[in-house]
Amino acid sequence: MQLALLFSGGKDSSLVALLLRDFYDVTLYTAHFGVTDDWKHAKKTADNLNLPFKRLELDEDVIYNAAETAISDGYPRNAIQFLHTTALEQLAEQDVDAIADGTRRDDRVPTISRAQAQSLEDRHDVDYVTPLQGFGRNAVDRLVDSQLDVVTGPSEEIPRADYEAELRAAIAESSGMEAIPEVFPDHEQTYVKGRR
Amino acid sequence: MQLALLFSGGKDSSLVALLLRDFYDVTLYTAHFGVTDDWKHAKKTADNLNLPFKRLELDEDVIYNAAETAISDGYPRNAIQFLHTTALEQLAEQDVDAIADGTRRDDRVPTISRAQAQSLEDRHDVDYVTPLQGFGRNAVDRLVDSQLDVVTGPSEEIPRADYEAELRAAIAESSGMEAIPEVFPDHEQTYVKGRR
Repeated sequence: MQLALLFSGGKDSSLVALLLRDFYDVTLYTAHFGVTDDWKHAKKTADNLNLPFKRLELDEDVIYNAAETAISDGYPRNAIQFLHTTALEQLAEQDVDAIADGTRRDDRVPTISRAQAQSLEDRHDVDYVTPLQGFGRNAVDRLVDSQLDVVTGPSEEIPRADYEAELRAAIAESSGMEAIPEVFPDHEQTYVKGRR
Repeated sequence: MQLALLFSGGKDSSLVALLLRDFYDVTLYTAHFGVTDDWKHAKKTADNLNLPFKRLELDEDVIYNAAETAISDGYPRNAIQFLHTTALEQLAEQDVDAIADGTRRDDRVPTISRAQAQSLEDRHDVDYVTPLQGFGRNAVDRLVDSQLDVVTGPSEEIPRADYEAELRAAIAESSGMEAIPEVFPDHEQTYVKGRR
């Protein structure tokens, strides 16, 4: 069975890749919007995990709309949620039996409800699997420690290919660098170099 | 990391065993109450899956209380929920790093909410992992087809070690055989013989 996994190169989606690789033919898809080439960080992790990699090319308008939302909100939550659901809808259009992502039980954003998951499956005739919905923060951290080789540091210094990298760039382009700290408070992020 | 998986020999808990076996030292625990020896069906499946097996011995009072509830309700839902949460609490008392069960995203019973999962983890200092919370019915069915060797048939003809087998026996003992069809409508069940 072919499975397309929405992949950022972060610990959650990397862990999902490991959990599913013996059960599906997994291809890693990294969403990007043509604003930066941060998707290359995810490709590097994908190569280290020895899994096939594809870009999921989304329209540039999507990220600029998200940037507008984030600036007007003063926080990135709704923007990230919009980017994730848009990416999932396009992922479900790929010619695969199943799609997956790294959303966790405790995630505050993005979140996909059971009803949304069922709707995505029904409309696209695809299975949507999210194994980390059954894992809390501690369980994920312990599995990451035992399975993955990671680097952790402040958000802007860690090479990543999640939505935040391109969202920061889109915000800077539309509203200047000074708008970024207004939207994103400092926080630690993790980049996966490969498997232990 | 040591993990105790609540195991019935059915397809859901068998699939969880396969999903987790490369990430944890998995031991399969089958709950039983001393009323029947249906736990032996689960041991057979555990042997075929080549995983260590233990009995999780629960007090006989628990199943008779559940039988009373089921008879008075006229359906088994609340009784099954009570048995499952009681079993999970006792499983969490084992000397392990994590516990797990086979509950699915679409299950109507038993269900464990996020808040209940968090509470279980906090009170027992254990991770509670439920990978099938991220899988719908179709996804589970397709994985079972590709991974497991199963038999399907009417509930009373399929050898099983879930709560229902002992609950039926406890109902028969306390209220007679004629009480069983009043609580359990006919439905198909699945028994896992082993891996494909």
